[in-house]
Amino acid sequence: MRYTVFGESHGPAIGVVLEGVPAGLELNMEAMAKELSRRAPKPDGLSTARRETDEVHVLSGLFEGKTTGTPLTLVIQNGDQHSSDYEDIRYIPRPGHGDYAGFVQSKGNLDYRGGGHFSGRLTAPLVAAGAVARQLLARREIWVGSHISAIYGVSDAVLNEAEELRELGDKPFPVLNDAKGEQMRQAIREAKEEGDSVGGSIECAVVGLPAGLGAPDFGRNVEGIFSQYLFAVPAVKAVCFGAGVALSYMRGTEANDPFEVRDGKVVTRTNHAGGVNGGITNGMPVLFEVTLRPTPSIALPQESVDLRTGEETELEIRGRHDPCVVHRAVPVIEAAAALAACEVLGM
Amino acid sequence: MRYTVFGESHGPAIGVVLEGVPAGLELNMEAMAKELSRRAPKPDGLSTARRETDEVHVLSGLFEGKTTGTPLTLVIQNGDQHSSDYEDIRYIPRPGHGDYAGFVQSKGNLDYRGGGHFSGRLTAPLVAAGAVARQLLARREIWVGSHISAIYGVSDAVLNEAEELRELGDKPFPVLNDAKGEQMRQAIREAKEEGDSVGGSIECAVVGLPAGLGAPDFGRNVEGIFSQYLFAVPAVKAVCFGAGVALSYMRGTEANDPFEVRDGKVVTRTNHAGGVNGGITNGMPVLFEVTLRPTPSIALPQESVDLRTGEETELEIRGRHDPCVVHRAVPVIEAAAALAACEVLGM
Amino acid sequence: MRYTVFGESHGPAIGVVLEGVPAGLELNMEAMAKELSRRAPKPDGLSTARRETDEVHVLSGLFEGKTTGTPLTLVIQNGDQHSSDYEDIRYIPRPGHGDYAGFVQSKGNLDYRGGGHFSGRLTAPLVAAGAVARQLLARREIWVGSHISAIYGVSDAVLNEAEELRELGDKPFPVLNDAKGEQMRQAIREAKEEGDSVGGSIECAVVGLPAGLGAPDFGRNVEGIFSQYLFAVPAVKAVCFGAGVALSYMRGTEANDPFEVRDGKVVTRTNHAGGVNGGITNGMPVLFEVTLRPTPSIALPQESVDLRTGEETELEIRGRHDPCVVHRAVPVIEAAAALAACEVLGM
Amino acid sequence: MRYTVFGESHGPAIGVVLEGVPAGLELNMEAMAKELSRRAPKPDGLSTARRETDEVHVLSGLFEGKTTGTPLTLVIQNGDQHSSDYEDIRYIPRPGHGDYAGFVQSKGNLDYRGGGHFSGRLTAPLVAAGAVARQLLARREIWVGSHISAIYGVSDAVLNEAEELRELGDKPFPVLNDAKGEQMRQAIREAKEEGDSVGGSIECAVVGLPAGLGAPDFGRNVEGIFSQYLFAVPAVKAVCFGAGVALSYMRGTEANDPFEVRDGKVVTRTNHAGGVNGGITNGMPVLFEVTLRPTPSIALPQESVDLRTGEETELEIRGRHDPCVVHRAVPVIEAAAALAACEVLGM
Repeated sequence: MRYTVFGESHGPAIGVVLEGVPAGLELNMEAMAKELSRRAPKPDGLSTARRETDEVHVLSGLFEGKTTGTPLTLVIQNGDQHSSDYEDIRYIPRPGHGDYAGFVQSKGNLDYRGGGHFSGRLTAPLVAAGAVARQLLARREIWVGSHISAIYGVSDAVLNEAEELRELGDKPFPVLNDAKGEQMRQAIREAKEEGDSVGGSIECAVVGLPAGLGAPDFGRNVEGIFSQYLFAVPAVKAVCFGAGVALSYMRGTEANDPFEVRDGKVVTRTNHAGGVNGGITNGMPVLFEVTLRPTPSIALPQESVDLRTGEETELEIRGRHDPCVVHRAVPVIEAAAALAACEVLGM
Repeated sequence: MRYTVFGESHGPAIGVVLEGVPAGLELNMEAMAKELSRRAPKPDGLSTARRETDEVHVLSGLFEGKTTGTPLTLVIQNGDQHSSDYEDIRYIPRPGHGDYAGFVQSKGNLDYRGGGHFSGRLTAPLVAAGAVARQLLARREIWVGSHISAIYGVSDAVLNEAEELRELGDKPFPVLNDAKGEQMRQAIREAKEEGDSVGGSIECAVVGLPAGLGAPDFGRNVEGIFSQYLFAVPAVKAVCFGAGVALSYMRGTEANDPFEVRDGKVVTRTNHAGGVNGGITNGMPVLFEVTLRPTPSIALPQESVDLRTGEETELEIRGRHDPCVVHRAVPVIEAAAALAACEVLGM
Repeated sequence: MRYTVFGESHGPAIGVVLEGVPAGLELNMEAMAKELSRRAPKPDGLSTARRETDEVHVLSGLFEGKTTGTPLTLVIQNGDQHSSDYEDIRYIPRPGHGDYAGFVQSKGNLDYRGGGHFSGRLTAPLVAAGAVARQLLARREIWVGSHISAIYGVSDAVLNEAEELRELGDKPFPVLNDAKGEQMRQAIREAKEEGDSVGGSIECAVVGLPAGLGAPDFGRNVEGIFSQYLFAVPAVKAVCFGAGVALSYMRGTEANDPFEVRDGKVVTRTNHAGGVNGGITNGMPVLFEVTLRPTPSIALPQESVDLRTGEETELEIRGRHDPCVVHRAVPVIEAAAALAACEVLGM
Repeated sequence: MRYTVFGESHGPAIGVVLEGVPAGLELNMEAMAKELSRRAPKPDGLSTARRETDEVHVLSGLFEGKTTGTPLTLVIQNGDQHSSDYEDIRYIPRPGHGDYAGFVQSKGNLDYRGGGHFSGRLTAPLVAAGAVARQLLARREIWVGSHISAIYGVSDAVLNEAEELRELGDKPFPVLNDAKGEQMRQAIREAKEEGDSVGGSIECAVVGLPAGLGAPDFGRNVEGIFSQYLFAVPAVKAVCFGAGVALSYMRGTEANDPFEVRDGKVVTRTNHAGGVNGGITNGMPVLFEVTLRPTPSIALPQESVDLRTGEETELEIRGRHDPCVVHRAVPVIEAAAALAACEVLGM
């Protein structure tokens, strides 16, 4: 299975083509819509004021409600665009954003309106593709769950068992500890009021992958495969498996996950390895944490350069931006993980 | 350029095939040997007692000292093997190691001796391949440097300028602050004495990549490409770009790198983005930190399972193991980064 | 550059996503429309009565008339469908068509209407993608031309110089010798009247590719790359480079193309190698001939099997079918060749 | 499974790395040696006088006689080299050979001795890799067989049933009709005596592939996959499936393969489609014919160009060359087909 996301934020439509979807899957469009609504901005004071309805049209690959095995094309029309808000940034790149790098790459031919192809809006088709992947995984009793593990330094409770994530997807703000969640939301609101933004982290588990998938080698190891999907999500700057960076503080006696037998099955007591040893799944949940940078589009004035004149200038951005993308990114990270899991399974 | 590492620790030889090497590169075999000697275990009390001479034989792709553009095959003979040390682990997997996952994947047909294909020894051909990549990059004035940023919680000085890394490769223990380096070495020695091991981190920069390389998309974004190479290095469990996980503690005003003009060139004052915005290089050094887990092979007894009987058992490992792989991994991470940079450049 | 064609003949739309298009190409939509009209069925008695307007809508990747370097999505709405014509073939596969193979592959979930994803209609987006490739090639003074070399045993005049193909694209029935062309048309008309169909061949040249592209190796050799694109065109069953199958009748003295110097450039006097030696371009036109099978959908009764009952049965097809696809396939083969040439050039 | 052939004719060794070999295959090295001896030149007056022993050394991926799932590396040492024979062609390319194209591609850094990486000798590791593929296929009762269908215009008897090819591999000169085979050998001998060479064709079948594999799309269609493997064999210039170029002489009524039920299974009465409809296997033998050009290295004087001076010159080649490669190519084509079949099966 291979996905290609296309579109620009203020173009006619965005979408995704999924190749290699197995034939005969009865596609649950309601479940897909539900995933998309998790990602959509809500009038909760934590997200952009832009409304995104994100209705999915199937252009190909589905017949009488079932996948045909041919390329599955899902398209979402664009709307509610304020393109004029972006005139300023055409030649004055936003610090932290892809504007400058994209300008150089495209030799000045970027669709700058609304962030164009770099827009977080492009994560909607990714979520739609992920919904297909999740339905395929569900047939093998594999599921993906996650929680917001931190926002602006406020950490959620420690995850003890991946099982705790199973029902979390129904929460509008998925944390293990709601009091911590309220502190996180408060941090977002404060940043918003001050014209600023905040970053955070998401911890995610893929549960049910059998042991023995992957290989230690380049292009085949499970961590490398997952990270390729995860870094394709805008704003992700770090991908850490199991105990992650804390392993640099650990000894082998702490880090090694002792083997034991439970219900006749070889398992590990702890999961510091994040379900992967030597690039191969060990049967425990594939567990990882990603860090997402603060939204680069902030209301406060910033230093930039006018690319027409090559002179330094101050930039003040208009438009409707998210003060934090972490809570909206939860279903996106899960979608990326689901697609990665399909690749690891050889689907 | 595409590399394939092959071999097992106690097989006849290990090696690498590099496809797509540009023709006409005058291969500096001395520079390659130097990189390999940086990786080789030394009698410094910090590494395995196994001696690895790692002399490279060129089987193909080189003629009259220059690359021909055909597959370049580099082979290193194996030697100094104590295969009998490994009889115990054939059916009793080491916690934290790839033994169990590999056993399941190979349906019990693993070459278990010395870790087989999972052995850290397989990083030698990777370093050799990286040496080729580094020589190609040097022709474009691109270089790779790094330092040990932490071992068992002891952190090196903060890196201010990538330039500080330029000459660090000559140091046997590459840190910015040698006093910190001595504390790290002490931590390794203590772990070794207690039959244990320690983890750590390496911060690495690729300097000189032009702006405009990569894309935001899956399979094309720079962070995704680099991470695929980095996670293919055994023991790497986290890959973090720029400010990395610290971005979850930051606001946009801190995280955004202000643009300015220096010597007529657009640059950023800080480099919290690690040289990548929207998946595309911005012309600043591509900067990242990887975390390596503590060596799983430790002398202390550990809990495991006998895969023949399915019963829990205690495992005591014999053999000569590294109490820490971080210092030996420095040239390996640099090699992986050099190969990734070549892919990003379309070489 | 990588293309993905999607859609079904009687679905809402068909289209193509092109990844890796260089930014800054001023896309000539008129030239694209012209290529599509070459492929469209005409009321000439040689083609299906189905009307295909094939207007291309750009969903992404184009801004202010120029490519942006992001995925370029081209969509063509479907129309003029007689889906009821196809009820019969849902479970009774047409001999020679993909119906049965596709039924097995999709486990019965095929969109059988109008041939679904197997329909020749899917070559329209391929032509659109090829038009982009041709415009990229034109910037390097590389062009693609071809002629119908045979239909039902009637052969066109022998091609002496690739130059003769340069203006042939303007002809509605592109042959070198129009008298032969009329004989071919007569053969098509006769087959049509008898409820039958005919096959034929197309000879095609890519002119202007520099010497030194490709490699002898799997995945990199020029003939392998071209053939992958050519066999992706429905009905193509043979791909022959240069003198092709006639090489099995030749001696080395005949087959070898003598080198000579013309205008200070090394060229070959003849081009029996089709511009490729050892898998690498030699600077001569890349020249090849493809054979297309007779249209499998014919009006005459045929022997088939009812896949519901597993019993043999007679099939009589309704619907509007091409008695020959060769003349309509000319721009399709050129499109495939243009895309292949872009890959060979590393675009 | 992915193979990479490496080496040069007069370098230290040639070989192949096979990635993705399933673990647990008990590798039959004798069967591999037998395939290699089929390819080796024999003192039959039809082949080069060079002796090739082609003993395979396993460098990695095999343990206790079984594949481990890690990269399998097979190496053959070179020997019996007359490098001085090739001084003349370093700067004076042989017509019809890869010398000139390779010179341009490598910017003059080619290992010209014995054809270097372009040498037919490189088909030995391909045969070794194919032997692994054949053993994997045999576990699913899939086999590959072929016959020499033509040499210098002398055609073998028509193949009626793929079954006729089953035992043909044991023949030193595999034809259906031995009288025709003797005429072919005579044509080779005559060409040799006159310092010339001849071309020919091989018809090959892969028997036992189930229906439903592949897809019509680029990169996934069965004909495209096979042709990529087949064109990677030196000297192959045409690949034709089923009735091949004869389809351009046919009507649909002739070309369409009628479906029928035999032993409860849907089959086709004829196999003009070569076992592939719409890019997907239909359960019949995958049947194709390849054309191999006459050996370019001939003893007769030829016109060429001195690449140092850019002046036309006459070339007379020394060395020991095959007057025909077709009979030696039979196991090579079978090896390529076996590897292609593994890809089609998703192995």
